[in-house]
Formats: sequence, C-alpha cells, structure tokens
Amino acid sequence: MALLYKADPERGRQWAQLFASKAPETPFRLWPDIGDAASIRYLAAWQPPADLTRALPNLEVIFSVGAGIDQFDLSAVPSGIAVVRMVEPGIVEGMVEYVTQAVLTVHRDLFDYAAQQRERVWRARPVRAASTRRVGVLGLGMLGTAVLKQLHRFGFACAGWSRSAHELEGIECHAGVESLDAFLARTDVLVCLLPLTDSTRGLLNKRVFAALPPGASFINVGRGPQVNQDDLLDALDSGHLHAAILDVTDPEPLPDTHPFWTHPRVRLTPHIASATRPETAVDVVLDNLRRHREGQPMIGQIDRSRGY
Amino acid sequence: MALLYKADPERGRQWAQLFASKAPETPFRLWPDIGDAASIRYLAAWQPPADLTRALPNLEVIFSVGAGIDQFDLSAVPSGIAVVRMVEPGIVEGMVEYVTQAVLTVHRDLFDYAAQQRERVWRARPVRAASTRRVGVLGLGMLGTAVLKQLHRFGFACAGWSRSAHELEGIECHAGVESLDAFLARTDVLVCLLPLTDSTRGLLNKRVFAALPPGASFINVGRGPQVNQDDLLDALDSGHLHAAILDVTDPEPLPDTHPFWTHPRVRLTPHIASATRPETAVDVVLDNLRRHREGQPMIGQIDRSRGY
Repeated sequence: MALLYKADPERGRQWAQLFASKAPETPFRLWPDIGDAASIRYLAAWQPPADLTRALPNLEVIFSVGAGIDQFDLSAVPSGIAVVRMVEPGIVEGMVEYVTQAVLTVHRDLFDYAAQQRERVWRARPVRAASTRRVGVLGLGMLGTAVLKQLHRFGFACAGWSRSAHELEGIECHAGVESLDAFLARTDVLVCLLPLTDSTRGLLNKRVFAALPPGASFINVGRGPQVNQDDLLDALDSGHLHAAILDVTDPEPLPDTHPFWTHPRVRLTPHIASATRPETAVDVVLDNLRRHREGQPMIGQIDRSRGY
Repeated sequence: MALLYKADPERGRQWAQLFASKAPETPFRLWPDIGDAASIRYLAAWQPPADLTRALPNLEVIFSVGAGIDQFDLSAVPSGIAVVRMVEPGIVEGMVEYVTQAVLTVHRDLFDYAAQQRERVWRARPVRAASTRRVGVLGLGMLGTAVLKQLHRFGFACAGWSRSAHELEGIECHAGVESLDAFLARTDVLVCLLPLTDSTRGLLNKRVFAALPPGASFINVGRGPQVNQDDLLDALDSGHLHAAILDVTDPEPLPDTHPFWTHPRVRLTPHIASATRPETAVDVVLDNLRRHREGQPMIGQIDRSRGY
C-alpha cells in the first residue's frame, strides 16, 4: 500500500518528511527509487511514468500535485484508475491573493499610473467606487468561487460563468454557452479560471474579446492554451482592451522574443498565481487515502467523461 | 444657517446638487459666491479663506473635505470653531483597496517579477503563505483599523501601532513610543496611516527603517512630510529595504528630478489612495449638521489639543 511521489524532488523531500511524521504506516517512495513496484497503489505526480500499467501494475489512484490535470494524457490512464486534482487550502489562498491583487491593479488604474511614473507625470485620476466596476469570473469551481467571494467583499459588481448552473449569494451566475455573450457584455474585468479541456482550448479569442465592453481588462490564471495570444495582442493594440495580466502563456516558459514581454499593458508572471503547499497538500492526500480505503468519494476526484 | 463650500469647484457642483436634493432647507453657497457672509455658519473646505474671523464672522464649524486636517493652520482658527475631519465610507473603501493591493504586491514578489519581465526571465519564486508575512500598520484610526481588518482576513500576521492603547480582534496592538521598536522589529511590511502632527513629522527616518528586519517594505499612505526621503532612498539602495510604495511625497507634486520617479523599487502614485466621494461625503456632513444642531458630538470632530 505504498505511495510514490514523482514531481519536483525538493518538494518531494518535504512530502517524505510530512508522511513520516503524519502517516508513518504508509510507505512513501520518492521517484526514481520506487522499490517494489507491485506494492505501489498510489501515485502523486505532475506526470505519470511512461508505460504506466506496466511500470505500476497495481496502481489505484493518481493524485495530481497541481490544481489541474490537463498535463496528464488521460487516454494512457486505464479507466479503473481514479484521477484526483489537488484541492487544498494553500492553492485557494494563493489564487485569491493573486486575483484580488490583479483586479485591484486594474480597478485602481495602476497601469496608467505606472505609465505616468515613467513619464514623471503627477496627475490624479478620479477614484471609482468598486460597486461601479463589473468583474466576471469564468469558471465556478472551488477557485472561482473563492475568488468571487473575496471580490464581492470589496464591493465589486460580481458575476460568474460556468458550463453548469450555480448559485452564489450576491453573485450573478450565468450558465452555458448560450449565456456567455450576456456575461461578457457586462464584464469590465474578465478573470479566466477555467480548466483546460477540448471545449475551453482557444475559447478566449477575437470574438470573446470583442464581446467585452471597450476598456475592459483580462486576467488569465487558467491555462495559456485557452487564449488566442495574437487575438489578445490585437485587442490590446487596437485599444479595445485596456490591459492584460497573464500568469499563464502558451508555451511556458514564454519564448523571449514574444511581444508580451515588452508590452506596456501586459503584466507577465511565470505561472506562480498559486502553488501546492506541501504542508496542506499532504493533509488532503492523507484524507483522500482514508476516503479511498473506506469507499467514499475523494475530494477533487475527476469525472473521466468530462475530463475535469 | 448657510454652508459654504470652498474646494475643487467641479466637486463643489456635485455637492450643490446633492444638497439641493437631500437638504433643500440648507442654503448652499459655492466659493467665491458667498452671498451674505453673516449667514454662513458652516464651511466645507480644503483651505479656509484668509482672515477667517473677519470673512465669516458667525462661523461655527469647519468641515475638512479630506481625511486629514493637516492642511489647516489651526492657529488661525479661533478655538470656539469646531473642526471636523472627513470620515466617510468612500474614503475608507478606497484606502482599504489601495493598501490591500500594495501589501499583496509586496507579498507576491511583484517588484521582482516586474524586474524579471523587463529582463525576459521566466523563473518562479516560492509562494509564501500570508500567515508567514508580518504586516504592521502605524495609526489605528478608522482607516488603519479598516485596513487591518481586511488584511487579517487574508491571513497575514497583523499588528498595529498607535499613540494610545487599542484592542482589535486578531491583531497585535502596540501603543506608545516605548513600544515602537518592538513593533518595527516584527514588521515585514510597514504601512503608514498616521495623521501629520508635530510628533509624526519626520518620524520615518533612518532609525525607524534600520529597526525593520532586512528585506522589509514600506507603504506610505499617510503624509509625505512624515518621511525623511533621503533616508528612505539610502535604505532602499543599501538593500536593507526591499521596496517602497508611496502615495504621498514631500512636496506634492514631486519635482520631476526626484530619484523616486525612476527608482526600480519605488512605486509612486499621485495621492490617490483614497478620495472623498461627494455622494457619501454629503450624507456624512448632513448627519453632522443634525448632530451639531442637537448638541451631539460630530463624527470626526478633532481634539484641538491633540491636533487630530
């Protein structure tokens, strides 16, 4: 009943220590020292080993060490193996911080003030009430919901969009492709927190940007391939969009010749909006191991048919 | 029983409209059209007229249109005239937004990521939990308290310092000059929200910066003259301080030759952290007029002996 960790080795050593103190009864193996492959029932990984079924013949669960599972080739994972996203409080906290900072950066005109600082111009702009700024979040999973709750507390006019219907207090919830345009038309600051799937790949294109009101801004903390990056640049350069704050790009790292690096109204960060924290992630995995042993659904277990 | 408004004329016209609809019984005058000077009992101003007692012989209350009253020369205001700071929800909301954005900017290493973007470097830094970041706010008035409550909600390790003792749930409160060093020694992000008085002028100097831990950052949303700007530059350039986010400077506007404009670890904004919003400010003034008529204390009335 061993667990194999196969991701960043430095974090792996932190996991090993946490397992040793919190669950000494569970054998913990750090890739590539897998020991007896037949004893491995659980894998915590960013990428599973090649030839998974042969390498780990008795595998029952794959835990992603990240919030998404789009880095997995699910077609290579037998359907009997459960796949679990990382849903842990550290990831949520980091994401709420990053998106709040990004929305406030746009709301308080800090791209304009940065330009004024470069030009040594001291000129105040009118301060707008948060209630007049319409924020819209694409994706109403655990992260999108937590982000909206915090933004709502600041007084922003908040809406969310998701494939399926949701209800969130104080938040205008839109569901389904047919309501996307209405959601976009009322959104001054668009935040993408969607999972990467076949239906979200390339979703953020010319048509979507044009459906936003003039002067809108875009914050991407979902996945790079959801965005048509040329369309985004066009929308910024035409002046239709005010600014973009991008934590994800396609590819990553972004090639150093890409125009995003030097665009005065693009802020780039290297996929750091949020990260799994070993302390809290291990607690979640241990809780899921217990759930799995007891035949309960695991927190973050994906629906293999939807792909998230 | 007229009220005279003497500040930004554009906002004054908004005040006039709001008074006309909300308190049509109160005569409203917009400087310089003061009408019968003897009928003016109330003044809403950024600066009172020169020769105040002669110009407005029956004045009873001066309302500042800003959060502070340090722009007034109180020695020219007879002691029988009440002086009232602007305490209104719009100012509080704007300040909470600005300081939250600034603290998150430091917390999430965004000065470093901005430098990496300039150098086209894609390199993630470890994400730290908010609970490991110690934020300290100087000044526990309405603004400092509101800011600390919001930062506490993000999970930061919060402390406040004030001249007099305060109790705030979940916040380590320090009081008095003798506890300042202990407060500074535990503060990674220092926020100044003090009023400008003789005892806070020049307070933020070499000694105070040296008392912060190495790598600390400084956010000033108080008043420019509270800071020794040369000492701040030295502390940044020596590497002792990580970054400064300054909404106020001395003087304002900051001369375009000042090194703050181009310093890579200084962010400057032109005194816009918060601004009085006519809609909410007029409600507060009308409430204070009622209180004054009924002999109750006014919200924001200053203690002339303390100067704030």
